[in-house]
Amino acid sequence: MRTEREKMLAGELYDALDPELVAARARVRDLCQQLNATRDADEALRRDLCQQIFGVGGDTVWMQPPFFCDYGSNIELGERVYFNFNCVVLDVCRVRIGSFTLFGPAVQILTPLHPFNAALRRVQEFGKPIEIGSDVWVGGGALILPGVTIGSRTVIGAGSVVTRDVPDGVLAAGNPCRVIRPISDDERHSYGSAP
Amino acid sequence: MRTEREKMLAGELYDALDPELVAARARVRDLCQQLNATRDADEALRRDLCQQIFGVGGDTVWMQPPFFCDYGSNIELGERVYFNFNCVVLDVCRVRIGSFTLFGPAVQILTPLHPFNAALRRVQEFGKPIEIGSDVWVGGGALILPGVTIGSRTVIGAGSVVTRDVPDGVLAAGNPCRVIRPISDDERHSYGSAP
Amino acid sequence: MRTEREKMLAGELYDALDPELVAARARVRDLCQQLNATRDADEALRRDLCQQIFGVGGDTVWMQPPFFCDYGSNIELGERVYFNFNCVVLDVCRVRIGSFTLFGPAVQILTPLHPFNAALRRVQEFGKPIEIGSDVWVGGGALILPGVTIGSRTVIGAGSVVTRDVPDGVLAAGNPCRVIRPISDDERHSYGSAP
Repeated sequence: MRTEREKMLAGELYDALDPELVAARARVRDLCQQLNATRDADEALRRDLCQQIFGVGGDTVWMQPPFFCDYGSNIELGERVYFNFNCVVLDVCRVRIGSFTLFGPAVQILTPLHPFNAALRRVQEFGKPIEIGSDVWVGGGALILPGVTIGSRTVIGAGSVVTRDVPDGVLAAGNPCRVIRPISDDERHSYGSAP
Repeated sequence: MRTEREKMLAGELYDALDPELVAARARVRDLCQQLNATRDADEALRRDLCQQIFGVGGDTVWMQPPFFCDYGSNIELGERVYFNFNCVVLDVCRVRIGSFTLFGPAVQILTPLHPFNAALRRVQEFGKPIEIGSDVWVGGGALILPGVTIGSRTVIGAGSVVTRDVPDGVLAAGNPCRVIRPISDDERHSYGSAP
Repeated sequence: MRTEREKMLAGELYDALDPELVAARARVRDLCQQLNATRDADEALRRDLCQQIFGVGGDTVWMQPPFFCDYGSNIELGERVYFNFNCVVLDVCRVRIGSFTLFGPAVQILTPLHPFNAALRRVQEFGKPIEIGSDVWVGGGALILPGVTIGSRTVIGAGSVVTRDVPDGVLAAGNPCRVIRPISDDERHSYGSAP
């Protein structure tokens, strides 16, 4: 007999109101509320809370609260990941983020999906994992949708809606997000539009 | 002699700095601040605050604060409506939402409009009502604009900007939001992109 | 020998972890947290905090917290600028906003840019100033990107991603944001879609 948590992580239909899952979300939301009340000067407290929130990493997290997530335990962070104000990570499935990746304000990383059948949608949901490489820069307000993989060193323009995989080392933007061009290693800095 | 509140609800030009309206907004913003400070474990308190905030419904609301609105009294909710983190409802006109409808994080339901004449815009505004059916799923970050009606059992993709009516039982997405295809009752669950 | 702050304001590559800059951000984030805890009834306190936050103006600011910014000191406001819920201004370079300009909820004004070279991006960033005229109405959720100028009396549709300059007196919308049509002075009010 599999638990709802096991089904959830496997990407199968599950009941989000399962008591174990409700308790896990309540725990991390309390931690996020504490994080969101910290001041920039409370560096050690902020780091301690991040280590409690995230499943892997957080010890070097560079974080601008408020930050919101569902479980935290399903988020694996590399070193020095940066979340600016108001980012949301709905981690009903695994979210892996490589080192030195930067998220602008109000970026959303969304693993949950709901059945298209309306009757089923009332009682069950499911999700798909998300993977984001190292040295990625995701512009403010971008949305990263269930099942997406974004390659390392890629730049995602502000306000993009990333519905499909994006390879390594490209500039991609738009709704839906499309590759605009590769980024050459020679480009020292860009005066392009993606913040 | 009609009050500013009556003009506002009728969709006519009105003065948002009218003392009765200022007081009504201050009341509900205090309630929202209290709601936004609750913990997931404070279920009864959260339900009590929701009943005070919303004009109709809220007794079964399933709500992930923070949540922001203008009056609350102009929002009519069916049963078990769900708002995820950071949703905004600007309810200067009536907002009706059917039962079992799900809103992803940072969805905005916006009834206010401002005159295109810049001089007039300094002193008056107006709005248009919004109606959202039952069993609708609105993906994260979507914007629902003044005057729009969304039919029941419809799915709105994440990041959509809904500028026009969307019928029952379709998948719609994009900026501006367009119908992509009907949803068949046979579709038990989708591995599509809309979270 | 130029300071990191001087380089930042000049739009050159700089180190955001410079102690002077870290301290300046910590100061304004404390002020924003205080602002975000105020009630609508705390009008005098809200005005006092806005005067401490903003480099110029704020004495007549009409503000709906929460509001988030990086320095505040680089933001110059005209009279009666309005920010609705959840607006973000990343002001590493100058942000000038004219009088009577209205920002809908969750609008983001983003001056920072990061080098496209991934190794350089780990240690330095830069920015470009933003200028927004008077009597502008920016719809909810719109993103205004580095280096952009928006002319007076212009209306930016909700959810727009403004990547290039927009002239005076037009309606512009979309991702990327494009001019749709000029606004005539005769238009007393519009029943269009931009909130």
